[in-house]
Amino acid sequence: MKKKEHLISMTVENKFGVLARVAGLFSARGFNIDSLSVAETEDTGVSHMNITVKGDEKILEQIIKQLNKLIDIIKVQDLTSYDCLERELILVRLSAVNRANIMKIVEIFGSQVVDVGQKSVVIELIGDSHKIEMTLKLLRPFGIKEIIRTGKVGIRKEGEK
Amino acid sequence: MKKKEHLISMTVENKFGVLARVAGLFSARGFNIDSLSVAETEDTGVSHMNITVKGDEKILEQIIKQLNKLIDIIKVQDLTSYDCLERELILVRLSAVNRANIMKIVEIFGSQVVDVGQKSVVIELIGDSHKIEMTLKLLRPFGIKEIIRTGKVGIRKEGEK
Repeated sequence: MKKKEHLISMTVENKFGVLARVAGLFSARGFNIDSLSVAETEDTGVSHMNITVKGDEKILEQIIKQLNKLIDIIKVQDLTSYDCLERELILVRLSAVNRANIMKIVEIFGSQVVDVGQKSVVIELIGDSHKIEMTLKLLRPFGIKEIIRTGKVGIRKEGEK
Repeated sequence: MKKKEHLISMTVENKFGVLARVAGLFSARGFNIDSLSVAETEDTGVSHMNITVKGDEKILEQIIKQLNKLIDIIKVQDLTSYDCLERELILVRLSAVNRANIMKIVEIFGSQVVDVGQKSVVIELIGDSHKIEMTLKLLRPFGIKEIIRTGKVGIRKEGEK
């Protein structure tokens, strides 16, 4: 059975030990962390973290409960349980050989070419998992030379507040 | 003196201990990590990490040398030393009270409104530091209720390969 991916959103104190502790908690329980991002918020004392993980739902619930008890963790939510917006930004370097075909795909998906060289082109993809995966599927045959992903971030829709 | 921000790009083995070790190395030497993102690449055994840090340049050089020696680290680059493309994606929730004015700013900067509610609007901002900071500066007076940042990611331009 394919395990469902969960997008966990956390507000934490901006202390560096927090990252290691959170990461340790997931990995100690056998959760594969597919992506993680942490950045400052408008309040310099507070950071925000997004983590995508796959694993058993019951164990995940336990982890979230444990996280909520930690002193440096302000709030934890499994966004997957709510109606939320999910986004990722990806930079992809492709061989320039098939530039014309690449441009067609880029146009269809409303993506952007952000660097053009003699040997390679760099494309900026933005969207939810579905759009990103569809675009990458079409781009892969042209030879992905480099891929830089931010990891997924998400925000709840207002109706769900 | 304001310390210059560095964007460090790393290719690493997809083992979770790596994240904690890398993070520990920076914090042990007094580096403030402003953002960190880690995500899979096309090769499931390999992850890519982006870190933005501020701190002494000489110590940073030492850290990079040390990182390059670690067995699970495939490649480390300080992108700030090269001509590179830098991007960040941000989701910002603002009070809906000033919706008309917010829309004008969004239009000028080519941003997107991704959720509209009775109480709040969510905007998606994408760009380099300069564009992001300019847009946020104009949006702040309208009341930022929530901000979710991916952290900066970067890629070298071809001429610099």
